[in-house]
Amino acid sequence: MNGRLTIIGLGPGDDRFVTPEARDALASAEALYGYGPYLDRVPRRDGQARHSSGNRVEGARAEAALNHAAGGAHVAMVSGGDPGVFAMAAAVCGEIEAGPPEWRTLDIVVVPGITAMLAVAARAGAPLGHDFCAISLSDNLKPWDLIERRLDAAASGGFVIALYNPISKARPWQLGEAFKRLARHLSSSTPVIFGRAVGREDEAVTITTLDEAGDAKADMATLVIVGSPETRLITREGRAPLVYTPRTSAEASA
Amino acid sequence: MNGRLTIIGLGPGDDRFVTPEARDALASAEALYGYGPYLDRVPRRDGQARHSSGNRVEGARAEAALNHAAGGAHVAMVSGGDPGVFAMAAAVCGEIEAGPPEWRTLDIVVVPGITAMLAVAARAGAPLGHDFCAISLSDNLKPWDLIERRLDAAASGGFVIALYNPISKARPWQLGEAFKRLARHLSSSTPVIFGRAVGREDEAVTITTLDEAGDAKADMATLVIVGSPETRLITREGRAPLVYTPRTSAEASA
Repeated sequence: MNGRLTIIGLGPGDDRFVTPEARDALASAEALYGYGPYLDRVPRRDGQARHSSGNRVEGARAEAALNHAAGGAHVAMVSGGDPGVFAMAAAVCGEIEAGPPEWRTLDIVVVPGITAMLAVAARAGAPLGHDFCAISLSDNLKPWDLIERRLDAAASGGFVIALYNPISKARPWQLGEAFKRLARHLSSSTPVIFGRAVGREDEAVTITTLDEAGDAKADMATLVIVGSPETRLITREGRAPLVYTPRTSAEASA
Repeated sequence: MNGRLTIIGLGPGDDRFVTPEARDALASAEALYGYGPYLDRVPRRDGQARHSSGNRVEGARAEAALNHAAGGAHVAMVSGGDPGVFAMAAAVCGEIEAGPPEWRTLDIVVVPGITAMLAVAARAGAPLGHDFCAISLSDNLKPWDLIERRLDAAASGGFVIALYNPISKARPWQLGEAFKRLARHLSSSTPVIFGRAVGREDEAVTITTLDEAGDAKADMATLVIVGSPETRLITREGRAPLVYTPRTSAEASA
């Protein structure tokens, strides 16, 4: 049997986002690898080994799973959200490129999942209804001045901006600096959405403005969406507002 | 009973991408609205009315569904991919903002889906592994020079670029012009992925380069991903290459 490594996205939160393709791939794997809290979301099955690891050892986790698959097994790597967005699929590819030639003979299958920005956007309305981008604020893997240049390019270019990895204990100031940087290009009333733990019991979605965003709470489970100059708020009595970005640019009628 | 409009993403292709949340929302709706080919993907249920419409009448479709929900019904709008990405959720919000005050009292629920760029990326490896953006090439709703400015900003900023709505009968030249524009910033060997009808029987994924991309075939069911300067190709004997963008920027070690 040819070895196979399937990299599976569970989506955020609970099982409501787990696609049939992901469910079937989980059921057919001989062994599961993944960050502990993601593995904990997968029901235990008799005879299916589980290899849990921490959230800072992506390379070692990918290497272990590839070695296992190279022995002819069907192995699955479990990821939250979508495995291709700032997650394990790129880590696995990096290990394959640097690794032994036999890893290139494996079946590599990626199963997409609902990524956090789609789930958070859905809770708020349709903020990603027009051109948008996704930027990771983690400066562990790239220099901060590159992040600032991308924030400049995105905001001045009229993109809605989804910020992944906005904050952590080791990176406490980056999100605040990002808001200051974006304020060079965007008005203080630009809508900003904080979506925390969407799909979980402790879900919290906060809609604020760029001016006030620095005071809102964020943590590692938070995804932040910053509107473009065209993003709008629809107020509703007794309900949260709807935030959306029209499909038609205002410049289209100019 | 308070009226409700649920806007549901089916994901691309077949049922493998339909989340449990989407499945449950489809089952509980009293009536379905949507573009014909999307509605055709939903099994018929006794007593559940179906209102099919064409792909150029988003505003009228949203208005009809909102009017129906305002009578106290639970109505669903069916969308391919994710309803929040260049799709019906923003159209519904636009109608609510412009419509009668009672529409603001409705329950508006958006159910996210796998959007095309995630499904296409999964087939190719992990091209969206680092910062990326999504741009619609349709100049029906915004001027072409704005699209060109966004292509410039994204390519020069180092973003991977997903191109939605790359081509149609009424817009035959835009994709070729976009490649020429991107070639001002990106090398001719930049990986380009054409993903057509992912998840369907006639799925076709082609991996080429920016230099050769103008010769590849695209249609309305195609999603195009253009790599960044850091996107890499892993060749594999007898298999399609893997395309991925490392999570670490090369500039991080500079």
